[in-house]
Amino acid sequence: MKIEGVEHIGIAVKNLDECIERFENLLGLKCSRRKRMESNKIEVAVIDCGGTTLELVAPTDEESPVQRFVSKGGNALHHICFKVDDIEGWLAFLDRQGADLIDRKPREGAFGDRIAFVSPKAVCNFLIELAEET
Amino acid sequence: MKIEGVEHIGIAVKNLDECIERFENLLGLKCSRRKRMESNKIEVAVIDCGGTTLELVAPTDEESPVQRFVSKGGNALHHICFKVDDIEGWLAFLDRQGADLIDRKPREGAFGDRIAFVSPKAVCNFLIELAEET
Repeated sequence: MKIEGVEHIGIAVKNLDECIERFENLLGLKCSRRKRMESNKIEVAVIDCGGTTLELVAPTDEESPVQRFVSKGGNALHHICFKVDDIEGWLAFLDRQGADLIDRKPREGAFGDRIAFVSPKAVCNFLIELAEET
Repeated sequence: MKIEGVEHIGIAVKNLDECIERFENLLGLKCSRRKRMESNKIEVAVIDCGGTTLELVAPTDEESPVQRFVSKGGNALHHICFKVDDIEGWLAFLDRQGADLIDRKPREGAFGDRIAFVSPKAVCNFLIELAEET
């Protein structure tokens, strides 16, 4: 059981359209997917870049959990998503190690993967996401 | 001329030892390289994770340029490093596009690559690094 790689880096941004425009037109990186998730009050845009993707996450209203990350106008690291092959195994292992889990069971992510979040308390204030391809 | 991938994600951290310990012992990710750079007043640790690496950057004194990123005790996105195959070509292109360049010519990075930084003004307040393997 091991982490296979960085699936994506989640970055909270204030203005999704502006960021996508810059990544596309200045750096030639394409936004391949974009999805509004009403339940989380966020909109997500995936910027493809070789094997790793940047996932831009913008709040869609003031009560979004992402709002505090961007409230000072800054674009900020939101989470690091690691690709794993046995998400239940990882959650059980981390639980045994005393790590705080946000999701005790996998749930469906924005683009169909099975995902779970681990509390920032576990790893030096980094919000960690685990994702297993389905 | 295109961006080949994310070479690493640079994350400013307050306590390098603590972060390395958590990545290694909780997540099983290894710190493969570590280097103190007196000229920049930083210490860098590379966490290997499949094709992408996380580069943890800690200030070594109060006057370090990384200090402001961690001054509130938070671990924060510091920069995104893109792998390119023609760094001079990219710098010339970005300059023609009116992007603010921090380094107008490539210089040597911590681990021997040829690197250059692009101002956060160019891409939505993200500090962008370009790196060409030597």
